[in-house]
Amino acid sequence: MDTAAAGTEVLLERAMRRALELARLGPSGGPNPQVGCVLLGPDGDVLAEGWHRGAGTPHAEADALAKVPEGAAAGATAVVTLEPCDHTGRTGPCSVALIDAGVARVVVAQPDPNPLAAGGAERLRAAGVAVEIGVLGDEAAALNERWATALRLGRPWVTAKWASSLDGRIAAADGSSRWITGPAARADVHRRRAEHGAILVGSGTVLTDDPALTARDGDALLPHQPRPVVVGLREPAPDAAVRAHPEPLLRVRSHDPAAALEAIADTGATSAFLEGGPTLLSAFLAADLVDEVLVYLAPTLLGGDRLATLDLGVPTIGAQRRLTIREVHRLGDDLLVVAHPDHREA
Amino acid sequence: MDTAAAGTEVLLERAMRRALELARLGPSGGPNPQVGCVLLGPDGDVLAEGWHRGAGTPHAEADALAKVPEGAAAGATAVVTLEPCDHTGRTGPCSVALIDAGVARVVVAQPDPNPLAAGGAERLRAAGVAVEIGVLGDEAAALNERWATALRLGRPWVTAKWASSLDGRIAAADGSSRWITGPAARADVHRRRAEHGAILVGSGTVLTDDPALTARDGDALLPHQPRPVVVGLREPAPDAAVRAHPEPLLRVRSHDPAAALEAIADTGATSAFLEGGPTLLSAFLAADLVDEVLVYLAPTLLGGDRLATLDLGVPTIGAQRRLTIREVHRLGDDLLVVAHPDHREA
Repeated sequence: MDTAAAGTEVLLERAMRRALELARLGPSGGPNPQVGCVLLGPDGDVLAEGWHRGAGTPHAEADALAKVPEGAAAGATAVVTLEPCDHTGRTGPCSVALIDAGVARVVVAQPDPNPLAAGGAERLRAAGVAVEIGVLGDEAAALNERWATALRLGRPWVTAKWASSLDGRIAAADGSSRWITGPAARADVHRRRAEHGAILVGSGTVLTDDPALTARDGDALLPHQPRPVVVGLREPAPDAAVRAHPEPLLRVRSHDPAAALEAIADTGATSAFLEGGPTLLSAFLAADLVDEVLVYLAPTLLGGDRLATLDLGVPTIGAQRRLTIREVHRLGDDLLVVAHPDHREA
Repeated sequence: MDTAAAGTEVLLERAMRRALELARLGPSGGPNPQVGCVLLGPDGDVLAEGWHRGAGTPHAEADALAKVPEGAAAGATAVVTLEPCDHTGRTGPCSVALIDAGVARVVVAQPDPNPLAAGGAERLRAAGVAVEIGVLGDEAAALNERWATALRLGRPWVTAKWASSLDGRIAAADGSSRWITGPAARADVHRRRAEHGAILVGSGTVLTDDPALTARDGDALLPHQPRPVVVGLREPAPDAAVRAHPEPLLRVRSHDPAAALEAIADTGATSAFLEGGPTLLSAFLAADLVDEVLVYLAPTLLGGDRLATLDLGVPTIGAQRRLTIREVHRLGDDLLVVAHPDHREA
């Protein structure tokens, strides 16, 4: 490789890293993936940056193109985290917008896994635009893993979260549980709630704990709020905290996890944050409808019968629900274990 | 500080680090602490090294002194991990041996916490020997933490170990559990068994699992074996694996944890490795007779009613058994959490 080529590669990777940062500014958990775009001039200078702000708003490429004067993108390089769409939905195809703007080269991190929208690279090449795919591809795939999985499975991605003692209990014998985990763990939960399109609890949990189901930083609401979903036959009280949620309450009057996911998918959400209680959590785990497990482990022992999980349909050890631990974090005094079902790793 | 003094300090710290290594060559979990000694000549050259090999054998200082010719230790510096004893037990006082050998200076990591044996520094100083205490004192205290705690509490230190799924189960519904944790976790258990004076299980576990209770590296026995202790009323079968243990079986025909610890203390052991099952483990935890908790967490979910812990006498959250996590290790696919009861940390 000559030095000029090496320099170009460094430049493109840096621009892609910035595009990934921009992508994260948009919401996750909705119908659309997080996408960022950096427009580079022929000399490698940044002409504009763009990102996608959610369904019905301009795509990242269009957002960036709109920031440069007419004609100024001619000969430019567009660095995009996801393959430009070739699809007319609520907005026109990005492939066409890039061609019309005279962009000379498009550098992509991840090919579009959505068959409805894919084909952008092909159309660009047919129009004489140079297309390179795969720069920081793994980072981009990780960014939209939940969205892509939902697309593949035809149902929202499910992150199941619980907090327990080291011996797997969620409360003392009398049901008291405030607080098992500390402030750092609770803040982490709120941050992750905000990454999901929906937040899901059983109606029993609403009656017992009256959770707000908002994503907060201290008392302040975070910018993105998951839509609250209450599953089960018992109605939340008229003054239940969840009814004051900024997003409208979705009621699923069924115990069936698949029915709940269908109702959530109908709202456009592609990910759900499942917070329990044990009955609902166990139903999802037993039905193999969990894609990610977050176990917040507090350094305490409780014993007794207030268990995080109930019957998971594991009669013998060969039927155990094996996971792969992806991450372990120490959060204050607590631990967070992030794990994924083994067959999801394949 | 002048450079000569700084040079001496580096030299002494290096010698103490070596003495700590030597100390670890001896057994732990018995009546005596692990102790190492390095004899330095007036020029800082190593004259001899010694360590203690267990009750009834020479102390580390005597072991080192025996390796130099008569008179050769005159003017030497003895670097010892623990304050030389001033006690005539199965061996004579080390303080006197050092004085008789003409040692000019004694550098100590940890003062002797044993009131029966302490006083060595005082006697050495009275004889005109320079004594310095506290070089790598924390490391030395950590080395013999279990022994010193046993001395203070008047009972053996108890390390409670269990292996569970992330949701706190030790087996599937039918009792099958081979293998929840992987080879790295199992090897770690064996290494830690060898650090304890006794290994403790309930008679139910012996009848169900027929464990050997040896400390092994693959098929080979490790040099130090904990003494097997079976607690409870049911007798192990005549051909039980535990009867083939290199150390004689200690039977405690009681369900009382305190009685078990008394019987173990009578053997001279100062630490016990408690491996369960759930009934015995829960009895020790409920009686607050556990000093260290090792939880091997396998990345799996089992649900059901085969729990690692049973009732721990925690009626309400204020009575929870809080721990402090000291270490978290990833062992193959598994996690090991090392935690200590909060009040032990004080």
